[in-house]
Amino acid sequence: MYKTKPIHGCDMPAEHPLRVLVLNGSLKHAPEISNTEEVAQLVLEQMAEHATLDSEIIRLSDCNIPVGLGFRESPDDDWPDIVAKIKAADIVLFATPIWWGGRSSLMQRTIERLDALDEEYIASGRSALYNKVAGIVITGSEDGALSTMGTIMMVLTFMGFTLPPECACYWVGEVGFPPSEDRAKRLKNPAVPHMASNMARNLVWYAQLLHVHPLETRVQTGA
Amino acid sequence: MYKTKPIHGCDMPAEHPLRVLVLNGSLKHAPEISNTEEVAQLVLEQMAEHATLDSEIIRLSDCNIPVGLGFRESPDDDWPDIVAKIKAADIVLFATPIWWGGRSSLMQRTIERLDALDEEYIASGRSALYNKVAGIVITGSEDGALSTMGTIMMVLTFMGFTLPPECACYWVGEVGFPPSEDRAKRLKNPAVPHMASNMARNLVWYAQLLHVHPLETRVQTGA
Amino acid sequence: MYKTKPIHGCDMPAEHPLRVLVLNGSLKHAPEISNTEEVAQLVLEQMAEHATLDSEIIRLSDCNIPVGLGFRESPDDDWPDIVAKIKAADIVLFATPIWWGGRSSLMQRTIERLDALDEEYIASGRSALYNKVAGIVITGSEDGALSTMGTIMMVLTFMGFTLPPECACYWVGEVGFPPSEDRAKRLKNPAVPHMASNMARNLVWYAQLLHVHPLETRVQTGA
Amino acid sequence: MYKTKPIHGCDMPAEHPLRVLVLNGSLKHAPEISNTEEVAQLVLEQMAEHATLDSEIIRLSDCNIPVGLGFRESPDDDWPDIVAKIKAADIVLFATPIWWGGRSSLMQRTIERLDALDEEYIASGRSALYNKVAGIVITGSEDGALSTMGTIMMVLTFMGFTLPPECACYWVGEVGFPPSEDRAKRLKNPAVPHMASNMARNLVWYAQLLHVHPLETRVQTGA
Repeated sequence: MYKTKPIHGCDMPAEHPLRVLVLNGSLKHAPEISNTEEVAQLVLEQMAEHATLDSEIIRLSDCNIPVGLGFRESPDDDWPDIVAKIKAADIVLFATPIWWGGRSSLMQRTIERLDALDEEYIASGRSALYNKVAGIVITGSEDGALSTMGTIMMVLTFMGFTLPPECACYWVGEVGFPPSEDRAKRLKNPAVPHMASNMARNLVWYAQLLHVHPLETRVQTGA
Repeated sequence: MYKTKPIHGCDMPAEHPLRVLVLNGSLKHAPEISNTEEVAQLVLEQMAEHATLDSEIIRLSDCNIPVGLGFRESPDDDWPDIVAKIKAADIVLFATPIWWGGRSSLMQRTIERLDALDEEYIASGRSALYNKVAGIVITGSEDGALSTMGTIMMVLTFMGFTLPPECACYWVGEVGFPPSEDRAKRLKNPAVPHMASNMARNLVWYAQLLHVHPLETRVQTGA
Repeated sequence: MYKTKPIHGCDMPAEHPLRVLVLNGSLKHAPEISNTEEVAQLVLEQMAEHATLDSEIIRLSDCNIPVGLGFRESPDDDWPDIVAKIKAADIVLFATPIWWGGRSSLMQRTIERLDALDEEYIASGRSALYNKVAGIVITGSEDGALSTMGTIMMVLTFMGFTLPPECACYWVGEVGFPPSEDRAKRLKNPAVPHMASNMARNLVWYAQLLHVHPLETRVQTGA
Repeated sequence: MYKTKPIHGCDMPAEHPLRVLVLNGSLKHAPEISNTEEVAQLVLEQMAEHATLDSEIIRLSDCNIPVGLGFRESPDDDWPDIVAKIKAADIVLFATPIWWGGRSSLMQRTIERLDALDEEYIASGRSALYNKVAGIVITGSEDGALSTMGTIMMVLTFMGFTLPPECACYWVGEVGFPPSEDRAKRLKNPAVPHMASNMARNLVWYAQLLHVHPLETRVQTGA
């Protein structure tokens, strides 16, 4: 997957400040360092080379997101605020660690709760997520990034997101080494900044392009 | 996943005839009916409502695609011709049946052989598949479409394809019924034409948009 | 997957009352009907034809299982009690609905929290889960059972569980129909009781066999 | 996944010479070194510490296994001979490299062709694979072992195989390094022999146990 020659430049569409939201599904609470968040930050830094960003990272472990399928599951449910931020964003990064081969319970909870948005799509006939671009960030001590990424991409396309080429960045280590060594290895790994660079360029480019030329669907009447 | 209200119209970018290639990984040989091919044809019909198409379906089971990772594995290897058609296409549909939860051995063989293209990317620093749009078609007697689809999307994004919203169309049946009834059920299923319609519109729209506004990457020298 | 001829009898090892624990990852709270729980109950009924059972179903949505990787994450954490029940069980059923192709956030949380048990394995050199038999129950409105099942089997084998033949039972429907019709279709589906019957017989048989002939590993010293 | 303290001994059931078949889905032809085969050989060596083995490795890339779902697809089809060897084995190892996150096209072909055995199960009411134990061996330059393994385990359980605890052994490397370095890293990796040791012990133990105490199912008449 790792491409050895970096590709930097592209002829960006006319610049527009971009709102970027990162949903970090790490199991760790702030301020503990999250490997996943550090890779997401690297992608944000690379994106900032191409556009003015207005970005926010939500640490899901520090939010109250109860189990359920409604839009608001309890009076102190943080989910409606998160939905408002997703709807306001141009680019959304879905960032998750891998636990036993799958996305974290917090990322899965987020996807379950997004189901209410999807039902809005069914009711309205138009996805609120059209013309938004999605990216994926994954870290794991070993194994599972490509599988986890694919299962998230499948969800995102049906929800209405656009997935540019190379829309992901990940780090996974060799099987059998202590997780305590992960961060040091990741920081030295040349594939991570390479993927982050391509991903950032493409996310910005497609977001700018869709800002200027949005997919404008019309709901047919009398169908 | 099934959206009940069809969305038909969109303001398409200036029309350009589109070359569409379907890679059908069915295990059946022509002229035996392939469920997967019939769904792909439905998507082609829907795409033809939005653009002039120049389309071709390759039944992989009738090609000679030897195992291996080279560009040409034997003198009668059909793969180099298939690569030429992929490179000439604006839109490529990856169409596969599900066998025991996974993409068919023919679709997997195709992905293995695409690896040589990917190595070209590493050597040249630029994907030959940028600005091409990909779609996915899947059929199975029961279960496995979403998982199979995700694993293919992961490959396609790293290879350089663009994945529009709702870039897939599939049919899977209820667990426990004879495969001989699949086709009749599929032909009556309202979700399939609905997905085909959205997918077709979005594939055409993004292909047109990228034709007019291609991602033009420049390989940096001296990096 | 559906086998049309039921196989009922087998020469069971000498009977021993079996403790069976069901972990139900449904997103619904009791007393709302859980499709997943109903299938698990069917498996329990079938198991009761072969052995005296002492069974319990835990509705995870009604437990307090905080995010984290420790053994006890908060004073009111229900996880330590669940671990005690897992350790006391002969057979554990992992039962989950499918949401967007994956196990529920509650089943994923359970797997994340089981990680502390796995670390106990690393420290002690012996899995507390050896000689326990696991089964899997999955329901989904459409698609995802086989994939979800495989990802859980992978976790269970490394944790030390034994997986008998046909260790799973599931229901998934045809793509594109309203979830409100799921239960009625499932109750008429002939594959579900057939899988439940084979699964129940095999879970009981292997649990009895391992009770009489346990895998007795000895931790080597001086390694 | 890697357990740091090795567990060697177990009280094996009365010894019985075991027939072991390895199906190697490497894309490479003999005599080229297959990483996957080397790991399978390590497992065989470890098994030989516990029992007298009669083992064979089939390099699938050097067989003629045409696409299709019949028992014999052409006069020179090697599949019927492979089936005979599977039926004669006590233990079958499914060994595959990872290509773009999935099992190789040769392993997928094997699973597709096994479908005819499964149909025999449907017709006869009894799996020819009951009382056989399965193991899984996987190697990949980076990522995909756990996912690939789970998707194979799902197939094997429904086909009638028994899956002992820790029934798999794999190697995957850190993302972003050249595949040419894989073998050297794998040979130094401590997790691989550890997994091979546990897997070998458990495969032998369960095969011996099922030899002495087979699951003897009776097909009920008049059901």
